Amino acid sequence: MSGNRQILIDSLPEGKLATSNYRLEENPVPVPGDGEVLCRTLVITIGAGTRAGLQGSASYAGAPQINVVMNGTGVSRVTESNSDEFQKGDLVVCPSGWQDYSVHPAKHLRKVSGDIDIAHHLGALGTNGLTAYFGLLSVGEPKPGHTVLVSAAAGSVGHLVGQIAKIKDCRTVGVTSTPEKCQLLEDRFGYDASVSYRSPDFRADFKAACPGGVDIYFDNTGGDILGAALRRMNKRGRIICCGAVSQYDTSNPAGSPSGLPGLLVGNSVRMEGFLVFEFSEHYQAARDELKGWIQSGQLKPLNDEFDGLEKAPEAFVDLLSGGNIGTRMVRIAD
Amino acid sequence: MSGNRQILIDSLPEGKLATSNYRLEENPVPVPGDGEVLCRTLVITIGAGTRAGLQGSASYAGAPQINVVMNGTGVSRVTESNSDEFQKGDLVVCPSGWQDYSVHPAKHLRKVSGDIDIAHHLGALGTNGLTAYFGLLSVGEPKPGHTVLVSAAAGSVGHLVGQIAKIKDCRTVGVTSTPEKCQLLEDRFGYDASVSYRSPDFRADFKAACPGGVDIYFDNTGGDILGAALRRMNKRGRIICCGAVSQYDTSNPAGSPSGLPGLLVGNSVRMEGFLVFEFSEHYQAARDELKGWIQSGQLKPLNDEFDGLEKAPEAFVDLLSGGNIGTRMVRIAD
Repeated sequence: MSGNRQILIDSLPEGKLATSNYRLEENPVPVPGDGEVLCRTLVITIGAGTRAGLQGSASYAGAPQINVVMNGTGVSRVTESNSDEFQKGDLVVCPSGWQDYSVHPAKHLRKVSGDIDIAHHLGALGTNGLTAYFGLLSVGEPKPGHTVLVSAAAGSVGHLVGQIAKIKDCRTVGVTSTPEKCQLLEDRFGYDASVSYRSPDFRADFKAACPGGVDIYFDNTGGDILGAALRRMNKRGRIICCGAVSQYDTSNPAGSPSGLPGLLVGNSVRMEGFLVFEFSEHYQAARDELKGWIQSGQLKPLNDEFDGLEKAPEAFVDLLSGGNIGTRMVRIAD
Repeated sequence: MSGNRQILIDSLPEGKLATSNYRLEENPVPVPGDGEVLCRTLVITIGAGTRAGLQGSASYAGAPQINVVMNGTGVSRVTESNSDEFQKGDLVVCPSGWQDYSVHPAKHLRKVSGDIDIAHHLGALGTNGLTAYFGLLSVGEPKPGHTVLVSAAAGSVGHLVGQIAKIKDCRTVGVTSTPEKCQLLEDRFGYDASVSYRSPDFRADFKAACPGGVDIYFDNTGGDILGAALRRMNKRGRIICCGAVSQYDTSNPAGSPSGLPGLLVGNSVRMEGFLVFEFSEHYQAARDELKGWIQSGQLKPLNDEFDGLEKAPEAFVDLLSGGNIGTRMVRIAD
C-alpha cells in the first residue's frame, strides 16, 4: 500500500472555478479506529451541485473552507474493517472525498452489489437517478402523452429524466448547449425534439419544438431557459425546480426570470422545488425499479469518465462549463 | 323609469389610472329581446384584477378598448323578463357593467337570495370569497398551527383569507400598507400579527412577525413582499400565487423577486398559481360553507362602500392606490 493521494481545496474561487483552486498532496494512509472501516476509492462522481459548497454564500452544501480534502461520493472497496457489518472486499458507497483512501464509521457506508457497473451506484442508482426519478414521477406526475421539457437534458440528471419520461409514454423535448449534444439527445437518449440554448434563434426553435406547449418542465438550470419555459406552459403545468446550474459558477448569479408570479397565475402553473433526500424512505423501491430498467435495456445511463484521481479538478471545471454528457465520473482504481 | 346612466372608458391610461380616463353618459334604457332579461343594477363590486384589462399587454381579462361601458359584476333586480327562468323582482348576479340597467340572456344570470346583505354575493360569497376559500384550502392545504402569511391582508380577498385561516386554527400574519390598517387587521380580522410594507424596517418587522417561519404564503401582491416571503418559507412551504397587484397599475411592472428558482429548491417550496374558475364545480358547496360561517359570526366580511354610480371611477382609482379595506362596492340603487 503506497501513500494516500488527496486533492485539497487550495483557494476559494472568486469568479469561475479553475483547476488552480486545487492542489494534490500525498499523505499517509489513515488507520481505522474502533468500529471504523478503511476504504479504497474506486470511482467518484462529480456533480454541479458540489460547486455551491465553494461559494461565499451559504448553501445546503455547507460553508466553504480551504485546506480540506474536496468532498465527494465514491464507490470504494473495503480494505480493512474494525466493524462486524463490513468485511474486506465489500463494495460500499461512501463519502470518500477526492482521495485514494478514506476511513469512516460503519454507519456512513452503504453496501452495494457488484453485478452491475459499479459506477451506476453513483449515477442512475445514486443521487442523480433518484433525483430524476422522484422529481419527474412524484413532483411532476407525468401522464402518457404529456410533453416533458428538460433543461441540461444531456446532463447527469437530465439524460435520465428524458429516458424515464419516455418509459412513461411522454413526448420529450431536451434543451442543451450545442447542436452536437442535440443530436446526442435524440439519437442516444430518445428525445423527440431538442433545442440548443446557444442558438441565436433559441426562442423560435424552442417554440417550434413544443407546438402543443409544455405540461411538465424539469428545470435543471434556472435563468433564461426557465424564462422561456414559463411562457410556454400549458394549463395546470408543473415546473420541477431541481437545480439552478446557471447560478452556481459565479458569485453574481443570474437574475430570476421576469413576469413572476403573474405567469404562474394565468395558467395555474405550479413551480415546485424539491430535494431528493425527502424521499429517502422510498429509495430502495426506486433503486430496484431503476435497476430493472437498466437490466431490461429501457434505461441506458451514460457515465462520462475521466481516468485518474489527478484529473478530478479538470473533470469538475469542465463539467461546470457545460462540457459533460451523462454523469461525470472519475475512475481512481480497479 | 329614467334614462340609463353609464360610465364608459374614455381613454386608456398610459401610467396610473385616473378618474379622467372615464366619462359618464346617459342613454336610453335598453329593451330586452326574446329570452332576455332587463336588470336594474343595485350594487357593483370593484376589484383590482379589473385593471389588468386596461393595460396594453394581453391579460386573462382580455384586450383593452375605449368607448365601451366599463365592465364589472353586480347584483341586480329583474325589472322585465322575457325568460321563463326569471321573474320581475328576482335578485341576480350578472355582468352588469358600470351602469344603471343592463340586458342579458337568461344563461348569464345567477339567482341569489335576499336573506343576507346582497353585497355579500359579490364579496364573501362571490369571486373574492371563493378565491380566498379555494386558494387557501385547496391549493394551500393548511393544518392547525401553521403560520399563514397574507399580503394585501386587509383587501377584498386577503381579509377573508386571514379569517378562514383562523377558522382552520392557523396562526395568521398580515402584510398591509399603513399602521392604521395593521391595527385593523388585528382588531377586526383577527390576525395574530401584522406588518406594514411601507415601514423602513419592513424586513426586520417581517422577520419578527414570523419567528417560526412561514408555512403558507397567500400572495396577493408579488414584488418585494413575495421576495421577503421567499426568504422566510419553512420546509415544504406553499406560496399561493393569487394575483400581482403590484404589477397591475403600471405599464412597466415590477421585476420578479431575486433568487428564483434556487430559493424554492433549498426548502422544497411550492409556488402555485391558480384561477378560481377551475374550481367551479365546487362553488355551491363552498358558498354554503361560507354563508354558514357568516351566519354563525365566525366570518365577518367587510364591504367598503361608495355611494352612487358616479363614484365608481373614484372608487377604482382609490382601490389601486391601496386605499381600500375589505371588498370595494358601489351602491347604485336600493
